[in-house]
Amino acid sequence: MTSVPSPPPLERLSRVRVVLHSPRHPGNIGAAARAMMTMGLSRLSLVKPERFPDDEAYRRASGARDLIDAIELHPDLDAAAAGCVAVVAVAARPREHAPVSMPPRELMPRLIELAAHGEVALVFGNETNGLGRAEVNRCDFLARIPTGGTYASLNLGAAVQVLCYELRMAAIAADGQGTGVLPGDALDSPLATHQQVEQLLAHAERTLVALDFLVPDRPSRLMERIARLARKSRLEQEEVSILRGVLAAAEALCGPPGNRRRSS
Amino acid sequence: MTSVPSPPPLERLSRVRVVLHSPRHPGNIGAAARAMMTMGLSRLSLVKPERFPDDEAYRRASGARDLIDAIELHPDLDAAAAGCVAVVAVAARPREHAPVSMPPRELMPRLIELAAHGEVALVFGNETNGLGRAEVNRCDFLARIPTGGTYASLNLGAAVQVLCYELRMAAIAADGQGTGVLPGDALDSPLATHQQVEQLLAHAERTLVALDFLVPDRPSRLMERIARLARKSRLEQEEVSILRGVLAAAEALCGPPGNRRRSS
Repeated sequence: MTSVPSPPPLERLSRVRVVLHSPRHPGNIGAAARAMMTMGLSRLSLVKPERFPDDEAYRRASGARDLIDAIELHPDLDAAAAGCVAVVAVAARPREHAPVSMPPRELMPRLIELAAHGEVALVFGNETNGLGRAEVNRCDFLARIPTGGTYASLNLGAAVQVLCYELRMAAIAADGQGTGVLPGDALDSPLATHQQVEQLLAHAERTLVALDFLVPDRPSRLMERIARLARKSRLEQEEVSILRGVLAAAEALCGPPGNRRRSS
Repeated sequence: MTSVPSPPPLERLSRVRVVLHSPRHPGNIGAAARAMMTMGLSRLSLVKPERFPDDEAYRRASGARDLIDAIELHPDLDAAAAGCVAVVAVAARPREHAPVSMPPRELMPRLIELAAHGEVALVFGNETNGLGRAEVNRCDFLARIPTGGTYASLNLGAAVQVLCYELRMAAIAADGQGTGVLPGDALDSPLATHQQVEQLLAHAERTLVALDFLVPDRPSRLMERIARLARKSRLEQEEVSILRGVLAAAEALCGPPGNRRRSS
């Protein structure tokens, strides 16, 4: 155990380097930068890019141009990953005798843990061939995105997006924030209690009787269906208030009991 | 409860329509098609695209050109989502009085459940403004991707990739396949048992004594450290065999006991 204090999980995202090994299209470098920045990552390195610098990288980076300006260029994978405590190769195909291979959903939480101890790297191969065997075998782990169907080749920027998203989700979970509920995801008002829903249903029944839509004391499946709808909807307190307001307005239209439309 | 048999979770992915509402760049239409196909989705609809058909859509679709050929064009969201049992708006910002909002990791498992009952749709807005309030309010749920830092705007194709990935992961989990372990992710051989690791450690100790690296019966932290390393490595049986082979080779070099280098 180390006694050096480690940053909280979400801050560890700044310890993750993304390394693109010999990328061919500068547009994908820009897409990778944008994908990283939306997930709170900032350190992008390139090994032997085919075309860089290039305006297309800036164009596709959109609001993440600062990451392009800060790109580090390295002659090989070892230089790009120097000082890292864990290096993950991202590849589509399995390799024999390669490092231990895991889906990103299992591996990214481990990487967030490892990032408590130092810098870590995610390494992506080029658009045509992915990472070569020599590069994969210099990494500590292999991450393979589960794909399906007849076409399994993710665009490079899209693969960076998925891995950075999983990293952020892992950091959010490690930080005790569950699945990433955002401020605006909160309910508008607290959920209604069981008693409030029962009172609403009683009010609804009274109103439907007043409207001559329901005959008192005659068995009907109608109230059961309405109750089922109200219960499954997980009503909020404000919604119960609105519905009771509507019921009260309908009751008022009917006039006082004994003065109903049909009976008058 | 319905008695109509529903397809297994992974097959339900074919019941998910992706709707791009007024996309501006044909390249993003192609990127969306590619993202979908890698995750096993196939039905792409467009509402009022700015430029379509367009060669750039085919170019960026790469191996998913068939999805571009099969694109359905619709005049509005209602037409694109006609017949769906659930429609999810994907948006970056929260909206007041909008449908219930959840992170994709919570909502996509629900959508896989709902797809047991019929077709469902994921609706994405355009690159500049996202979905308008009128469109969001015609949807049943709102999905917001957790983002971080100062730049939170995902590229349209990247957002489609994240949602389709979460859908596939949800289908894999619902299908009882956990986190998506792939065939090549399997270990090369079964994990070593506790007893096999103990035997390896005993063999290692004998060999280190033979090498005069360890003095018998004298306390040393060395074997403790070696044991710690062996245990945390989760050794496979084949790896134990290899290590014991190396130890045997080293022992053989030392000659029989009583005939050691130093003692001879």
